[in-house]
Amino acid sequence: MRHVSLNQPFVVRGYAASWPASQTWSASYLSQTLGSHPVNVAITPFGNADSVIDVEDEGCVFVQPYEATEPFCDALKKIQHQELHSSPQHRKREGEKDEDKTQTPTRYLQTQNDNLRSEYLPLFTSIPPSIPFAHIALQKPPDAINFWLGNSHSVTALHKDNYENIYVQVRGQKHFVLLPPVESVCVNERSVLAATYGPRDGGENGNEDLTDLVPHIDTPTSYTPFALWDPEFPTLRSARFSHLSRPLRVTLDEGDMLYLPALWYHKVSQSCSEEGICCAVNYWYDLDFGGSFWAMAGFVRGVGLLSLGGRGGDEEVEEKEQEEEGEGKTIGD
Amino acid sequence: MRHVSLNQPFVVRGYAASWPASQTWSASYLSQTLGSHPVNVAITPFGNADSVIDVEDEGCVFVQPYEATEPFCDALKKIQHQELHSSPQHRKREGEKDEDKTQTPTRYLQTQNDNLRSEYLPLFTSIPPSIPFAHIALQKPPDAINFWLGNSHSVTALHKDNYENIYVQVRGQKHFVLLPPVESVCVNERSVLAATYGPRDGGENGNEDLTDLVPHIDTPTSYTPFALWDPEFPTLRSARFSHLSRPLRVTLDEGDMLYLPALWYHKVSQSCSEEGICCAVNYWYDLDFGGSFWAMAGFVRGVGLLSLGGRGGDEEVEEKEQEEEGEGKTIGD
Repeated sequence: MRHVSLNQPFVVRGYAASWPASQTWSASYLSQTLGSHPVNVAITPFGNADSVIDVEDEGCVFVQPYEATEPFCDALKKIQHQELHSSPQHRKREGEKDEDKTQTPTRYLQTQNDNLRSEYLPLFTSIPPSIPFAHIALQKPPDAINFWLGNSHSVTALHKDNYENIYVQVRGQKHFVLLPPVESVCVNERSVLAATYGPRDGGENGNEDLTDLVPHIDTPTSYTPFALWDPEFPTLRSARFSHLSRPLRVTLDEGDMLYLPALWYHKVSQSCSEEGICCAVNYWYDLDFGGSFWAMAGFVRGVGLLSLGGRGGDEEVEEKEQEEEGEGKTIGD
Repeated sequence: MRHVSLNQPFVVRGYAASWPASQTWSASYLSQTLGSHPVNVAITPFGNADSVIDVEDEGCVFVQPYEATEPFCDALKKIQHQELHSSPQHRKREGEKDEDKTQTPTRYLQTQNDNLRSEYLPLFTSIPPSIPFAHIALQKPPDAINFWLGNSHSVTALHKDNYENIYVQVRGQKHFVLLPPVESVCVNERSVLAATYGPRDGGENGNEDLTDLVPHIDTPTSYTPFALWDPEFPTLRSARFSHLSRPLRVTLDEGDMLYLPALWYHKVSQSCSEEGICCAVNYWYDLDFGGSFWAMAGFVRGVGLLSLGGRGGDEEVEEKEQEEEGEGKTIGD
């Protein structure tokens, strides 16, 4: 409760070490438990689900992943295979061209729609239905409990969520870069044209070439407010006050728990266990909109947007707010 | 803790009904206990300690009370006498002239320097040394515990304190008008020339005429940041956004307790018991400067000051901040 009150993060090392999930979730256990159960898979060319990329003739574009339904055991195998058999020099980043012009697409199981009580229900008994201290401090049950499975090719771009977040690492490691809400002025938030990855040829006849995914601008045209700045490349896409940011960095090992307070910006990358997987669960609790925090944080962000100038200004702020409130959309870890 | 976290006030009716103070603090008990012990008395012509008044040729001036040392029992008698024997039409407000040109000065015992553990120590055993729930929630002992004794002629002007405040009414009633910190933009805060009440003739030879107190501009000249707006006269001294304020009003009866969260603006007036006194105690706990609240509330206030234009602007904001931080001054209930 004191940390919620101060909106300050903390880590409890080994918090979940005795959870059944921590003790049983090997690749083979997961594969046996879920088998060929169909799951939603986020597929991207560069491990960049929900990120901003540069598109010729369009400039910055916010791109969402291509989504496919695959048997869980197949998706798991492909995640492992990419991790264990793709040598570092084959790792691609946005803008790099493959010499042989083929891509190994990156898969990430990250539906974040309370998937542990639906899509991954057979795994739900391996974790507690709520985090006792969070339940008491926040006076409510979790709004969503999510399962995450991916490999080191996936990186979640800097963003914030309108949730109090309890993040628990089960296999592999997660590397967080964290910025408090008062640093909203540093992240260069802009309204960015929205797009979605898809096969270059449209994938007719069910013959989809996932080795050649390209962004398709969404229709009707829409814009998503998103942070352009990346604290790990501080001189790129920076805004006037980005250099004042003082990011915190923390790595979660297996069994560790992070309280990630509401509205903190976070960028998340991952490392894998020996089996070539990175697996985590998180609990989202509604933040309390009734006190001073929500109103003041919104004001701080709004003034920051005005300070951006250029493409900022009153109209853009209003547009962004409407979109954000209308969508209620949450992305990434 | 939940209310501290949300920076939201609450009242517990009858919280202190069983305190020895609630059961014993009659005028005669107080007089017997403190006798002729010398105490600091704030004396003003209109019951306006620490308030903004209009002074010819100077404009708005922030005026502090004349301070005298008097035997407690004498000050108490004068407070009672003014309350019980001054008819309503004799109540004066700033700007009104007495027909007979004499003033009955208003006395208020309001030293607010932890006076219950010094000046009024004999009364300290009548109250708890800390408020248990506040002590636990705020994780610290009180920074100051204060005794307040006055009558209905005194009004404390709208202001805020850098403290978490537990206010307990013992005799009579206190009437609070409350504004949250996000309404800082409504209160028309300005840097105001500082003055102090004193006898018109300087009071040489110890012959001080307290029926003719006038403001003397402090030397060296200094300025105090203060709210010019009064939510009870909303069209006077208003700023651009004052009309958006939605003040809360609450009256404390004998035994009632108010949690007045840090940085809430409050204006306080009082009613007396049948004995002609209004008596209260309060506990100030340091606020937590480590989380998001202090930084964000300061930013919200700073942007509000910029919006005032005219006498506002960058330079004035800096000047105010320096003064405020340098002084650490707290005034009024």
